[in-house]
Amino acid sequence: MDVIGMLNLDEMAHGLAGMTMFPYFDTAHYVVSVMALREQSGVLELSRRSPFACWFSSMLFCFGGAVLSGLMMAEPPIAPLSNSTNVLLASLIWYLVFYCPWDLLYSCAALLPFRLVLSGMKEVTRTWKVLGGVSQASIKYQDSLLVMIAIGWAKGAGGGLIANFEQLVRGVWKPETNELLKMSYPTKITLIGAVMFSLQHTSYLPLQKHHLMLIYTVFNVVNKARIIITGSSTSPFALVESVIYKTLFAGSSSSSSSSSSSSRYTAMGFDGKKPVAIDNGNTSTNKKKPSSSSTPTNESGERRSQALASPTRGKREDQRSAKTKEQEEDSSCKKTD
Amino acid sequence: MDVIGMLNLDEMAHGLAGMTMFPYFDTAHYVVSVMALREQSGVLELSRRSPFACWFSSMLFCFGGAVLSGLMMAEPPIAPLSNSTNVLLASLIWYLVFYCPWDLLYSCAALLPFRLVLSGMKEVTRTWKVLGGVSQASIKYQDSLLVMIAIGWAKGAGGGLIANFEQLVRGVWKPETNELLKMSYPTKITLIGAVMFSLQHTSYLPLQKHHLMLIYTVFNVVNKARIIITGSSTSPFALVESVIYKTLFAGSSSSSSSSSSSSRYTAMGFDGKKPVAIDNGNTSTNKKKPSSSSTPTNESGERRSQALASPTRGKREDQRSAKTKEQEEDSSCKKTD
Amino acid sequence: MDVIGMLNLDEMAHGLAGMTMFPYFDTAHYVVSVMALREQSGVLELSRRSPFACWFSSMLFCFGGAVLSGLMMAEPPIAPLSNSTNVLLASLIWYLVFYCPWDLLYSCAALLPFRLVLSGMKEVTRTWKVLGGVSQASIKYQDSLLVMIAIGWAKGAGGGLIANFEQLVRGVWKPETNELLKMSYPTKITLIGAVMFSLQHTSYLPLQKHHLMLIYTVFNVVNKARIIITGSSTSPFALVESVIYKTLFAGSSSSSSSSSSSSRYTAMGFDGKKPVAIDNGNTSTNKKKPSSSSTPTNESGERRSQALASPTRGKREDQRSAKTKEQEEDSSCKKTD
Repeated sequence: MDVIGMLNLDEMAHGLAGMTMFPYFDTAHYVVSVMALREQSGVLELSRRSPFACWFSSMLFCFGGAVLSGLMMAEPPIAPLSNSTNVLLASLIWYLVFYCPWDLLYSCAALLPFRLVLSGMKEVTRTWKVLGGVSQASIKYQDSLLVMIAIGWAKGAGGGLIANFEQLVRGVWKPETNELLKMSYPTKITLIGAVMFSLQHTSYLPLQKHHLMLIYTVFNVVNKARIIITGSSTSPFALVESVIYKTLFAGSSSSSSSSSSSSRYTAMGFDGKKPVAIDNGNTSTNKKKPSSSSTPTNESGERRSQALASPTRGKREDQRSAKTKEQEEDSSCKKTD
Repeated sequence: MDVIGMLNLDEMAHGLAGMTMFPYFDTAHYVVSVMALREQSGVLELSRRSPFACWFSSMLFCFGGAVLSGLMMAEPPIAPLSNSTNVLLASLIWYLVFYCPWDLLYSCAALLPFRLVLSGMKEVTRTWKVLGGVSQASIKYQDSLLVMIAIGWAKGAGGGLIANFEQLVRGVWKPETNELLKMSYPTKITLIGAVMFSLQHTSYLPLQKHHLMLIYTVFNVVNKARIIITGSSTSPFALVESVIYKTLFAGSSSSSSSSSSSSRYTAMGFDGKKPVAIDNGNTSTNKKKPSSSSTPTNESGERRSQALASPTRGKREDQRSAKTKEQEEDSSCKKTD
Repeated sequence: MDVIGMLNLDEMAHGLAGMTMFPYFDTAHYVVSVMALREQSGVLELSRRSPFACWFSSMLFCFGGAVLSGLMMAEPPIAPLSNSTNVLLASLIWYLVFYCPWDLLYSCAALLPFRLVLSGMKEVTRTWKVLGGVSQASIKYQDSLLVMIAIGWAKGAGGGLIANFEQLVRGVWKPETNELLKMSYPTKITLIGAVMFSLQHTSYLPLQKHHLMLIYTVFNVVNKARIIITGSSTSPFALVESVIYKTLFAGSSSSSSSSSSSSRYTAMGFDGKKPVAIDNGNTSTNKKKPSSSSTPTNESGERRSQALASPTRGKREDQRSAKTKEQEEDSSCKKTD
């Protein structure tokens, strides 16, 4: 790509591609991930009640991608534990985020400038993880684009994809939500990255690897910063998704005539308005230490889905559901704005 | 087996054993599987709301056996994705079944003659899948009859066995139902096939492989056709099961004295009356496009199980449960008659 | 360790280390495990309704450790099935425990002296299983202490760790309880064993293997016998846990000021008062054949956790929860005394 060459970005791309993630970027990834866990409702209470489950959940947030891609490739999902240094580092950060005297680490890291830098650094690790997944898959399955995409995606967004089972560790079970049903922004950007790196790997995309790494990383970091600063969660792909959805999937639906199709769709599982709560914390911005009692979101979200899943449950249930639906709209607005 | 030889069926058996499943039989398998998914309650709505989760569910219906047997044998469960042609074919069929203009494919395939032919062809693939599983297991575990049976069964009836997790992808969670608790007809016939092919493989069954393939395939196809045409779901094994159950498992039950034991048993998880809803769609016969709002079965079934699981939940719940129980009886009768 | 040498225990340790588990100790393990399953609420009814699911659950109780460690090491989780002799032995015991005429086996084995001997023998198998896990892990990951601990733990306490999924086989789903959230005594003692054997394996612990085996086995057997005889479930580690908890995890909790921290903690998930129901039956002592209708424990336990998980659910729910909480206290007292 000559534009990059002309702009003297080639050297920068090489520099980026040569960076190692350990220790600084990995540390940022662990801090952001554990903070994301801490900001889930009920986790603070869990951290007092059952430190071990809390630690295990944190490890799934930090190493979920490696665990999931290991399972999918029939390689030991326990492997991340064998990297003692990283596990100890992540455990130390887990301890500091949850049990540090006066909550020092969390209070600092939650400040906007620090959060901005840490989240940006975490986004850099995403590039490496997706690329690692694609390379790992290409060893066993040379020509299979689909496997490369799947493993790259799993490695980059593992924490989100296994969220149901991570929650189960904490005694929480929300079957009505998952990242396949409604993708969060981080999951989606990772999927796009996995597609791009897989296309690059199979030479369908006429780009050099380090150029693609630079483009993808810069796009991610900038976009993440924009989301954190503006608090807006408008997807940069909303338009494309909407077009794809309307072209391919809204065609012959008889049920879509009763309500406007665009108001109901979540093109590829996204509706551009309400980011799901479990997204490795990348969309949560300015709020501080939500206590479990002050966030009715999950509870009401659960009820809403129950109501959706069981349309014939009876009137009383529906009325309650209607009320909590409103509540949820309120609280989700509060959350992202 | 000389009877087969005398009847000149030997040549036919050889012909059958030499058939390849791709593309015609595989296509039939995908069509029937995806239609089975579409006929689950709530899936049509899901297909508009979240095409990706719908696609993923379809793939689990189509390749569930390979995924499950992969997990059990510590071989990559992602492997089916590496067969691009089959995945693309299945994806195309998924698209046509759910989003075809004027619902052309589904409306056609749901007509009795087409459904009959497609289901028959799908049954043929069952033989190949069970045999494939048994062979795969026998490579690693030469002499282990039990492993062969398990892998053959998993490969042939994987979609049903992992139904709980397939539903989870769609945001549905019904812990109170699974194929081990109450086997559906397809799961049962696959288990019998896995036992027979394993016995043949270890030479306990004095039959040649291609003869067994012929017998098993013909039995399956004929039986399937009978079920579709008559709409009856009387199991051909009901008598045998009942005898086995009464001999082995109804012995010293003190609780069985209060109610007649045969009315409560589901010998090996089957009661010959109500086929479970999730059976890869093989028992659903003449009904057309059930919308999610018109099928109260699952909802009430869920409630009934909740009531079963929690005997002390309070009177109001029980009253509601009693009502829905009746409803369920009604709707399940409607379904299978 | 010269004390052991002087006491002439060296020979005894060698003798113990040379013992084989099959058939006597394995048999005891299967009997105690299947009895533990039978003592779960609702299982007797399940054994009449669906013998196959009951058998599958029993196998998970007996071979859960091998299945879990297989999954974690990317080795076939189906492998235990390949050991036909052990599977047949376990199946025979399953049959006798559930369907023996006049309930002979269960009635005998539930008598205190027999239960004492069988439980003691089962504890002996724990040593072998933990050690097997540590050795298995050390082949692939020579120097990784954490992996050794994890696999040793998984192999020794697998049945408890996969309890959620074992229950799912039976149609029971209790997401709010798991062994990570609140460890039972057997899980905890296994974890300690895994740590000790891993430390010994990596030479951090200056003890010979057979000496450690002797110490660990004797400690386990004696402690188990004490629990069965006295019916007390006071953890021998309660003091240590409490100190660790107060030092490390109770530090800066703002929420712990409102209630005394020690009354809420379950240091490492244990509170020394209420052993969880699913512990491979090792703490259940004198009770005989609980029928599913007479044990409201699980139901109320479920509600309590629901209430915990959703503090904002509304007053009515809370009132109900308060009532059932009391019920639960009653029934859990009844259970362990």
